[in-house]
Amino acid sequence: MENKEIVLSGIRATGNLHLGNYYGALNKFVKMQDDYDCLYFIADLHALTTNPDPKALHENVHNILAEYLAAGVDPDKATIFVQSDVPEISEMYLLLNMHVGIGELMRTASFKDKARKQLGISDDSQDIEKQIIGADTNKRVNAGLLTYPTLMAVDILIQKAHKVPVGKDQEQHLELTRRFARRFNSFYGVDLFPEPENFNFGDHAVKVPGLDGSGKMGKSEGNCIYLVDDEKVLRKKVMRAKTDEGPKEPNSPVSEPVENLFTLLELTSGPEIVQQYRDAYADCSIRYGDLKKQLAEDILKVTTPIRERYNEIRADEAYIAKVVKQGAERARERASKTLSEVREAMGIIRFKG
Amino acid sequence: MENKEIVLSGIRATGNLHLGNYYGALNKFVKMQDDYDCLYFIADLHALTTNPDPKALHENVHNILAEYLAAGVDPDKATIFVQSDVPEISEMYLLLNMHVGIGELMRTASFKDKARKQLGISDDSQDIEKQIIGADTNKRVNAGLLTYPTLMAVDILIQKAHKVPVGKDQEQHLELTRRFARRFNSFYGVDLFPEPENFNFGDHAVKVPGLDGSGKMGKSEGNCIYLVDDEKVLRKKVMRAKTDEGPKEPNSPVSEPVENLFTLLELTSGPEIVQQYRDAYADCSIRYGDLKKQLAEDILKVTTPIRERYNEIRADEAYIAKVVKQGAERARERASKTLSEVREAMGIIRFKG
Repeated sequence: MENKEIVLSGIRATGNLHLGNYYGALNKFVKMQDDYDCLYFIADLHALTTNPDPKALHENVHNILAEYLAAGVDPDKATIFVQSDVPEISEMYLLLNMHVGIGELMRTASFKDKARKQLGISDDSQDIEKQIIGADTNKRVNAGLLTYPTLMAVDILIQKAHKVPVGKDQEQHLELTRRFARRFNSFYGVDLFPEPENFNFGDHAVKVPGLDGSGKMGKSEGNCIYLVDDEKVLRKKVMRAKTDEGPKEPNSPVSEPVENLFTLLELTSGPEIVQQYRDAYADCSIRYGDLKKQLAEDILKVTTPIRERYNEIRADEAYIAKVVKQGAERARERASKTLSEVREAMGIIRFKG
Repeated sequence: MENKEIVLSGIRATGNLHLGNYYGALNKFVKMQDDYDCLYFIADLHALTTNPDPKALHENVHNILAEYLAAGVDPDKATIFVQSDVPEISEMYLLLNMHVGIGELMRTASFKDKARKQLGISDDSQDIEKQIIGADTNKRVNAGLLTYPTLMAVDILIQKAHKVPVGKDQEQHLELTRRFARRFNSFYGVDLFPEPENFNFGDHAVKVPGLDGSGKMGKSEGNCIYLVDDEKVLRKKVMRAKTDEGPKEPNSPVSEPVENLFTLLELTSGPEIVQQYRDAYADCSIRYGDLKKQLAEDILKVTTPIRERYNEIRADEAYIAKVVKQGAERARERASKTLSEVREAMGIIRFKG
């Protein structure tokens, strides 16, 4: 893997993966692992910013690991690891916090957004900073949430990653990462960190819509098809997807809920099948029940092998343990090298006997 | 050391130690090591909050280690370690940040004070928070400084220390540490951390005045006698200490600069000598030159053996390395046990093959 560019990506351990995660990330992970030196990690430390139930946290890590593997991420090609298995990340997080401004963290859009939600403040409140700092509330916004961008920067910089596939909501964090990299290099007069770029997949970003008629598929939206949904659940979800009353005239414009079903069909079925239903819509012969049956069938073709493999892997604790052990070793190898360089640059030097 | 109470104390690695450090901390360290299970550490991670020169940092750690040892801290009785040699501290710092509020950190007096200094804001500014957050300045107040109380709490809690000798300026931090301990125990329904108390030395706190006529001896005041000052430098400093024109009438009140010299004499000389000079002051026969010569002589009796031993130890890299290695092993033994308990409570569980 020596001369390949390093790609790093992580998923927060907060629940099962859905079709949106699959088309948005997971199947790209599988494609990338042949051409890049890939590191994929389960971000359990990031998940802690919202103080999850301890029992659920480990379950989630376990599930997502099994889902990565079931979807085809190959532990002999890519490095799969659990973030908390690499203590060097925490060490560098503390060190990098010494060069990260409170102001630049506070101004991060995603921090403001999450802090607002935690405090129950409406979006137009100008006084968000004051309320975060203020003593008037019993609700705390914790320092872990504030320093999320430091931790994300460390995930990337400690592996000296060149490319990080991030969505729009993470672009600001990646920009901060580049700024922290430049700042560290310049403050200590070193050339330690490359500036990571967003991974460009060469096509427009895949949008996977939800089943509720609008917006994209998302865990918190409750409009998801999970990769591990069993046949019955999955069919039921698709059959209940929102539609409309159907086209009254030939070549009617397509409403958003129905267009969403076409989009899902485009992701999972062959082009002829999509065309067949588009034509049926255009000449008003479409029956949404048929469309949904077809869609459920084709989604199942994608998810069934993943689910079956998932169930095998999920039950095989020894295999999971082997994978994460191997992954942690590889991730720590590079991380500990970078950490040594960081410590040396900062003047933290061990005494030699 | 099993049944002794655990005492923890650290000194920031920011320069050489002076007489104030000696009477305020170091000679108490030496007394405590027989009766308590003592951990004394060099706080190099804390020193990073002000982005020190990397070259100076390691020198300072080295100097202070040699000063601890030269002053009589015994590595076979107490655990002497360098903070950055215990990676478990950084790991737990990240974890504890998930339960520490931004507001409670921002409201810490010492944070406000240091942030003000860094930003060059006068004390009466009401808008300190706004300026810390604000984009209007090129100066950054870093997240490491903000989370200093988290790190200090971890230093204490990871060793499950019962007693921590702190001065007035650190009392608020110790109070926060107790709060974080209660909060963690209660959030996870565990009984993991004892609440650490301030160490009560049983006498009033020792005040070591400076040589400039007012206030206490302090590195930043430039009024210090360092433990490693050589004879010539030390005598010169004492002879130049501020006094006044001398008593004009019997039993005159003593001015602050002269009282400071008496205080130093009380710390370093026998009571008869102090009485002799007090009497001379009372009957107006005192000559400050004599007083200062006496004082220099008696300070040298304290510092000369320390300085000589310091020079030996400072040159013996292998010995220092041995001491810190042994200290790190002991400190890590307890720290890693506590960290395991913290991780388990939070749901960070390793997979077992």
